[in-house]
Amino acid sequence: MVRVAVDMMGGDLGVDSNVAGIRRFCLDNRPTDISFDLFGNIAPIEAAISKLGDFPSDLCTLHDTGDRTISSEERPSIAIKKGGGTSMFEAISHVALDRADVVVSSGNTGAFMALAKIIIGMISDISRPALVSIIPNIRGRSVMLDLGANTDCSATQLAQFAAMGSAAAKILLDIESPSVALLNIGTERSKGTDTLDEAYKILENNGNINFVGFIEGTDISKGTSDVIVTDGFSGNISLKTMEGTIRYLLHLAKEEIDKSLICKLGCFLCRGMMISIRNSLDPSRHNGAPLLGLRKVAIKSHGGADAFGLANAISAAVTFAKSNFIPSMTEVLASLKTAV
Amino acid sequence: MVRVAVDMMGGDLGVDSNVAGIRRFCLDNRPTDISFDLFGNIAPIEAAISKLGDFPSDLCTLHDTGDRTISSEERPSIAIKKGGGTSMFEAISHVALDRADVVVSSGNTGAFMALAKIIIGMISDISRPALVSIIPNIRGRSVMLDLGANTDCSATQLAQFAAMGSAAAKILLDIESPSVALLNIGTERSKGTDTLDEAYKILENNGNINFVGFIEGTDISKGTSDVIVTDGFSGNISLKTMEGTIRYLLHLAKEEIDKSLICKLGCFLCRGMMISIRNSLDPSRHNGAPLLGLRKVAIKSHGGADAFGLANAISAAVTFAKSNFIPSMTEVLASLKTAV
Repeated sequence: MVRVAVDMMGGDLGVDSNVAGIRRFCLDNRPTDISFDLFGNIAPIEAAISKLGDFPSDLCTLHDTGDRTISSEERPSIAIKKGGGTSMFEAISHVALDRADVVVSSGNTGAFMALAKIIIGMISDISRPALVSIIPNIRGRSVMLDLGANTDCSATQLAQFAAMGSAAAKILLDIESPSVALLNIGTERSKGTDTLDEAYKILENNGNINFVGFIEGTDISKGTSDVIVTDGFSGNISLKTMEGTIRYLLHLAKEEIDKSLICKLGCFLCRGMMISIRNSLDPSRHNGAPLLGLRKVAIKSHGGADAFGLANAISAAVTFAKSNFIPSMTEVLASLKTAV
Repeated sequence: MVRVAVDMMGGDLGVDSNVAGIRRFCLDNRPTDISFDLFGNIAPIEAAISKLGDFPSDLCTLHDTGDRTISSEERPSIAIKKGGGTSMFEAISHVALDRADVVVSSGNTGAFMALAKIIIGMISDISRPALVSIIPNIRGRSVMLDLGANTDCSATQLAQFAAMGSAAAKILLDIESPSVALLNIGTERSKGTDTLDEAYKILENNGNINFVGFIEGTDISKGTSDVIVTDGFSGNISLKTMEGTIRYLLHLAKEEIDKSLICKLGCFLCRGMMISIRNSLDPSRHNGAPLLGLRKVAIKSHGGADAFGLANAISAAVTFAKSNFIPSMTEVLASLKTAV
């Protein structure tokens, strides 16, 4: 049995979209071994449920947190001070109290990270959680972190991210000794900030991490390394630049197709390719990034996630909860302990 | 007459590629009003020239700097101390001494920025040069800076970049009052670093800059603002992520095409579209980014630029030199003076 706690007030599209996301997950997966604890303002949640004919109410327990929510504008420090009783706080607490196995939220990333860190707590030797994602590339897939949980990172934190990324790549991508690189503005040893220089020194002196040096932005899609380590500011900008560039290219293609009938026919013939590419790169399809370093699984869903996106984040949450990820991660991290 | 000084030792592909780049520019443009001053190790330059039958030697003056070069590994501080007599140093000095109108180099970006700042000098009220590029997007084009000249930027420097970007968009994109945004990990006022918060305060209090707030990575390709301001670290990673993503998508398309004959036929019919998209996004075609803020035009060509890339960087250099860019820029900046 996997018990999923969901922050129903998080995300740009609000309660209706989150309710539709849970319904969609259940319609697609017909789960028999999953239950949901839904945290939020019970009136709009019930209104949204009543609008949908086939909501899986039998699998769900509602927890009323009234109109107490953490807005996307809230600073993490304020969320910590005043977040008690909000849907996000209570959903996280449910997991911390072992009443659920995993928590999912599309809400404020900084607040989610700060609250999860304090309420759930960290794996020993890791000081801050990092948001991780699996990025497709020419050679296969890489693990990239941090993608937005920490805007400023010290060299030690980057080295901890390297250890966590290495453990995650070992478990998620089944790579025995994943290559780990620091994202920089050039591959030369002299390039970049003092923090990166210091992180380089820590990592090159660690025999347990397969550190391969600096990579640059073009290397992300080349698959130069199995793990890409960066601070949450650059990581977030890089990931969102990727998303934007993909949308831009699809837009360019559509514009060109509209110009010519022959091109339209050509595109009809290769529509299978276009659908396959669009699907393989659709951020909604890959929604649901775990916050690495916590004692439990906490899944950050994209702020703009629609019902399909949230359904995929729940799917990711269930996969992590079932896969024994946290004990495996803790074990691998212990073997890399000298790294951090 | 436009006089172009070229650092012949810069770039990953070396002298042969740079010689071929100048030849290519001249074959494509048949210039009658351009002369070149080439700085570098004269023996390999002459050897490369002699290999090419139709090198425009009549337009070129060679300046021997022996084997003194600045490597891509060199830190900017060392380049300043020990760079005298190198091809990059001498090419920049030629412009500073008004013996050339513009300098082009594919060499070490940090060193080029540091040397140009000291040797050529800055427009008043601007403390550091920024590397700028014109980025295509769904709505048209935007000006983005800094793309790698400054890894760490203060709030004041970001505000100066905003003023320079605004001036550049006015001149290059012909926009009367360009909208200016700061690149961040979210659009909410509370998001990001303390430096961004401070830069926001400076810009929102300036009536001369059309400041529209924070944007995120996905907004770059949406064309949410005419000017995108960021530090050189994130800017460089974002730009190179874009390049990598484009290459990855073309790779995916090729892979899918190879799988099916019908798809091959379809792609043959829409090859015009594919070529048009590939060309419009080819980084070589857009090579040659000016360092904004200097008293003269200095053009940074991509380190990996081939002959075609260098020819395009020279083309950009000539356009800037002919367009009265520096006086226009100085004038617009003076009108925004209260900003910086």
